[in-house]
Formats: sequence, structure tokens, C-alpha cells
Amino acid sequence: MNGVPGAFALRATSGNARRGSLTLAHGVVETPVFMPVGTAATVKGLTPGDLFELGARIVLANSYHLWLRPGRETIVAAGGLNAFMRWERPILTDSGGFQVFSLESRRVVSDAGVRFRSHIDGSEHEFTPENIVAFQEALGVDIAMALDVCVKLPAEQTEIDEAVRRTTLWAERCANARSRAATLLFGIVQGGLDESARARSAAGLTALELPGYAVGGLSVGETRDEFERMTRFSAGLLPAGKPRYLMGVGTVRDLLTAVDAGIDMFDCVYPTRCGRNGRAITRAGDLNIRNAVFARDFRPLDERCSCSVCATFTRAYLSHLFRAEEMLGPRLLSYHNLAVLIDLLAEARTAIERDEWAAFRSANLAALAPAGD
Amino acid sequence: MNGVPGAFALRATSGNARRGSLTLAHGVVETPVFMPVGTAATVKGLTPGDLFELGARIVLANSYHLWLRPGRETIVAAGGLNAFMRWERPILTDSGGFQVFSLESRRVVSDAGVRFRSHIDGSEHEFTPENIVAFQEALGVDIAMALDVCVKLPAEQTEIDEAVRRTTLWAERCANARSRAATLLFGIVQGGLDESARARSAAGLTALELPGYAVGGLSVGETRDEFERMTRFSAGLLPAGKPRYLMGVGTVRDLLTAVDAGIDMFDCVYPTRCGRNGRAITRAGDLNIRNAVFARDFRPLDERCSCSVCATFTRAYLSHLFRAEEMLGPRLLSYHNLAVLIDLLAEARTAIERDEWAAFRSANLAALAPAGD
Repeated sequence: MNGVPGAFALRATSGNARRGSLTLAHGVVETPVFMPVGTAATVKGLTPGDLFELGARIVLANSYHLWLRPGRETIVAAGGLNAFMRWERPILTDSGGFQVFSLESRRVVSDAGVRFRSHIDGSEHEFTPENIVAFQEALGVDIAMALDVCVKLPAEQTEIDEAVRRTTLWAERCANARSRAATLLFGIVQGGLDESARARSAAGLTALELPGYAVGGLSVGETRDEFERMTRFSAGLLPAGKPRYLMGVGTVRDLLTAVDAGIDMFDCVYPTRCGRNGRAITRAGDLNIRNAVFARDFRPLDERCSCSVCATFTRAYLSHLFRAEEMLGPRLLSYHNLAVLIDLLAEARTAIERDEWAAFRSANLAALAPAGD
Repeated sequence: MNGVPGAFALRATSGNARRGSLTLAHGVVETPVFMPVGTAATVKGLTPGDLFELGARIVLANSYHLWLRPGRETIVAAGGLNAFMRWERPILTDSGGFQVFSLESRRVVSDAGVRFRSHIDGSEHEFTPENIVAFQEALGVDIAMALDVCVKLPAEQTEIDEAVRRTTLWAERCANARSRAATLLFGIVQGGLDESARARSAAGLTALELPGYAVGGLSVGETRDEFERMTRFSAGLLPAGKPRYLMGVGTVRDLLTAVDAGIDMFDCVYPTRCGRNGRAITRAGDLNIRNAVFARDFRPLDERCSCSVCATFTRAYLSHLFRAEEMLGPRLLSYHNLAVLIDLLAEARTAIERDEWAAFRSANLAALAPAGD
């Protein structure tokens, strides 16, 4: 390990696209980077060995889910989250804010924190800025996210303003609650599609001089134009010397857009959820592997892909696995879909280093079929 | 490749236990051997790479399922079943008799063959001794099973006698229908729990001088004593110079019993089905990984097991995966359960070579907890 956790070296830029290296307690993460989502301490269907083989350098897990099951005591007894799930590289945990605010009727929010009932057994719990930082630090993760208030769009202006106010207040309390240098705290910019609210949110958070910042509340159903506009606007509000993380993105198209806006880190359930449902991501757009046309198509899923699934299996075989509802299908397709996004960003890093980002982006957008997203 | 497909070299015996080498078109299989079941051209949840890593030398697939989906044309177009599923080692296909006779009301049997309706879409199909041999040969498998009549026990004597008569008749027609030297035809001894019917069945089949023989219709709910008695009796009816395959077995205990009776080959869905349901096979008996006692048990599943799951993951983590209904759980437990049976028979082969079979069997039976099966 070279460097102190939190050191972020900007190695190259090409337009607004950035090529960086983020030093974390469990290793260096080269950015831009896609983080596979392992909600419940497992990237669904895949082993840590698979993720290593895929070249994943960091994975995401979710505080809400782990708080409820298996719970802090079990993970601490295992020696931390890395040891529990047998993943030696960095982990980022989401704060649970997004999940709690998805519970709707089951939660009560105040400046103190948010009280909610478990979706598993109805038991009552409370997240506060302090206890959610303590939880993530106890898990020993590399990056902890501040507790934030997520607003469902469209929303009243007063609701957006209140969410920004509370997210900033909570970020300050999260910052004050820190007690472990190896766990970096990232703040989350909220503000919906309102530029002034986004700017106010970013100003409040950057004043805390956190080691990284996320853009939350996007990729939640807004139009492609709104997504692109708010991503560019939000990225521009964040300090150049810190990593920028766009939460819940994505797709090949959205990653190309967001890297172009100067975003460094991404996570999304899209590749693994699609993988379970038979939707294959390719550099030429997505395809539904159950379609009759693939039943005797003996080509690999994506001829541009160098993953072990594409090197081994045919569309015909994968199509058969999904028709027969065989669990190997979701496993293989999840693996391939992650490979596409991880490899896309590996190639993006090279393109940025060579200052060929604009051409790389154009070529990759052009390769996507019209419906491909 | 040395030798001609079908050559069976008996390398050692220890008591009635046999240590052999069966030469097949896709490689040599060392016996006694456990064959993982890949019903629909996939061992559920596992890749061919996993099976290779596990040391599986041969897998089983099912004619009934493959006939219906993806169907002969697709598999032939892929270049055969090995190419379709990307498994380079030998494959044995079941004839489909067992599955068709499980359909009960959906089938009509005559000397000509068996007409049935698909469990998938209700479409009508017919299996005859001739077309089921042609199907298996078209798939290019190493071992094809003759079409047989399976009787549900308990059954009337006349029904058992009729099943034996028809199974023998069909085996003759299967033998006459052969057209491919690389696919070996095995006959299946039926006769329920009736020794004279078993003897008549074995006599009819062995007269055909097939390259191998299976014992069918056991491990279907009979008592342990009945199972052991009929296994020993049936094995004794079969020629010493040919491989003997006991269908649908097993468990650690049943494998030890059957190897002791002189059986060479086994298949069973038990390890993979248990793996999907959270039941772990260990050399000390089975355990239900969901039990509360395992939630903070940081030992491997089976301390005697050298598989990669036991080398990597704890009972606590596996327990968490099953509680959270994560698909990695079934994958990992299926892998481990197969490892236990494959490794048990690898050790058995060594014990037979050293003429230490009786001691090996006793020690392994003693290690099983009372409830362990």
C-alpha cells in the first residue's frame, strides 16, 4: 500500500473526463470505476473469486440490509465485512438512507434521525447520523456514506429544500461522529432537479472538506436530458481534487455521459438485476436472451467482450438456460453484464490517459443500437 | 486416449468393492465414481469449470428433458451435447424412462413404446427403444441408457413381471438399434424388491452382452435393509468384467453400502437438490445451514473437506446467504455437497487399491452422526 487512505491522485484529464487513483485501506481504486452491488454482503450469484477475475476493484454493500441481517454483531464477530464475505479489496457501504426512504409508510423522519420498521420482520429501528457512521466503521469498510434524505420526484419545492437542509445537517453530524481514519466518509448531494437546491447542497457539504462526494437522487425516472443536465451541473459543483461518485448509474450510455461530465465512481444494480432477468448488456445495446432468435445462435453474447462467459458459452446455450429456468443462466449473465461495464471503464481510463476520450465516447455511443440502453 | 470405448479394466478389489477404469470416447473414468446430475444440460448452478475443479470425470444428463427442450435439432446444430454445454469430459444420458413413468396419467405404454404429453406445454411425444437410442447417439454421448419400464412400489407381482418383460424386450431392440460405436449402451435391471424378477431381468440383459449394466428401481422409498439386500443381490447378478451402475444413489451411507456390494457408478440429485435447499452434506452427517446455531459459527462447513467453499467461506456466511435467500448460497452448497461425494469415492478408490476397503467403510460409517444420512 502506498499513500494514506483518501489520497486521490488525478492522473490525467481529457475534456472533463478524469483518470484518477483513489487510495483506500484495502487497496488502490483506479477511476473511473464501476462498483458491483453486493447489497446483502454478496453480489448476487457471484463469488469474490468471480469479482476478482472480472477485475472489480471495489464493491458496494448496503447498511440498511446488513443492519437488519445478519446484523452488526455477527459481522464484527467475523472480523469485519471484508472477512465475513471473503472480499479482500475495498468496500463502500451505502448509508441506508435510500432504502429507508423507499419504505414510505413505515418510517418517521425528524432532525434526530429516521425511525423505521424492518421489511423482514416489522421490528423497529432508528438510523441517526451518528449510529450509521458507527455501524459502517464497525464493519471496517473503506468508504462510508453519510445518512441522507432522499426525496421521491416529482416533489414540492419545500420538500426538496427540507431534504437538502436535513442532508447537510446530518452530514455535519456524520463528520463529527467519525472515529476511524481507515473509513472515509463521503457526503451526498441532493436537490432533485433544482439547480439552486443542488448548489446549496454541494456548498454545505464541500464546506465539511470530506474526502469524497456523491451525487444522489438521479437516475430515478427523470428524462435522459434532465439526467445529463443535472449530472453535468452537479459534477461542476464538486471540488476537482476529490472523487465524485454518481449513485445508482448504470447503463453503457449513462456511464459514457457521466464520465464525460467528470464523474469518477458508479454503482448500479442494473447489470446484475438484468442478468437475473435474461437481459444481456452488450456494447451494441441490450438484448433479451429469451428471444426465439437466439435459440440457435451459436455466437457469444457480445463479440467485443473478452469475459469468460463470452469465451465459453453461446447465446443458444444461455437462451436454453433461461427458458429452462436454470440458475446457471442468471449467474452467467450477471457475470457477463458486470464484465461489460467494468471493461468499458477500463477502456475509458486508457482513452482518458491518451487524451482520446471524446473519440472513445462518440464511437461507443454510436455502437449502441438505437434502442440500446 | 488409450483403449477402445467400453474397455473396463478392473484394477483392484477389496472384498466385493472394485477399483476400475472405464474407457469412454471423451476420457477414462476411474471407478467407483459419482456422476453429478445435469438434467437439462447443466448441473444446477455450476459451470463446467466448477465440475472440472471438483474432479468430476463424467456427468449425467436427461433424455426426457433434452428431448423436450432445447430438442435434438438445437443440440445437433451445436455440435452435440458436449459442445452445447461446454463439457469436454464424458456424459451419460438417462433414457427418459424414469421421467416418463413419473408422469403417471399423462402416458400410455405398449410394447411399441410409450406415448406421453410434455410437462412443459402438453405436446404429444413418443419414446421407442429405437428413437431413444437414436436420440442419445445424435447427442454424441458416451453412455446411453436403454429405455426401461419403471414401476412405482409397492406394485402387484403381475405389474413387476410385465415391467421386467418389457424392459428386456426394449433392451434387445435398443441393442439392435445401435449405430454408433462411441456411444455405449447400458441395460437397466428392474424387478422391484423381488429377487426372482431381478434375476430374470439380469439374465435377459446380460444375454445381450452390453458394455455395462445398471440397477434401476432402487432408492425409491424402500427401507434401508431392503435397499442394501437388493443392491447386494442385484450386483451379484451382473458380470464381473463390466461396469455396474446403481441409479439414483446417493448419500454418503448409501454410497458406502453400494461400493461394498460391488457397484462402480452412481448418480443422484441429492447433493445438488440439498444444496439448493440449505442442507449440507458432511462426512459427519448432514446439517441444515439455516439453523440458528450456525449464524455465528465461523468454522468451514466440513473440516474434513478440502473443497474451495470450505477453504473460503464460513458456516456463518453460508447461513446468512440462505436466510437472505441469496442465490450464491445454493451455488456454494451444491458445489460443496458434490465435493463431499466425489472426494469420498476418490478416497474409496485409494482404499480399495490398498485393500483397506473394509476399514475405510467402517470408519466412514462410524463418522456419520446417528441421524446422518
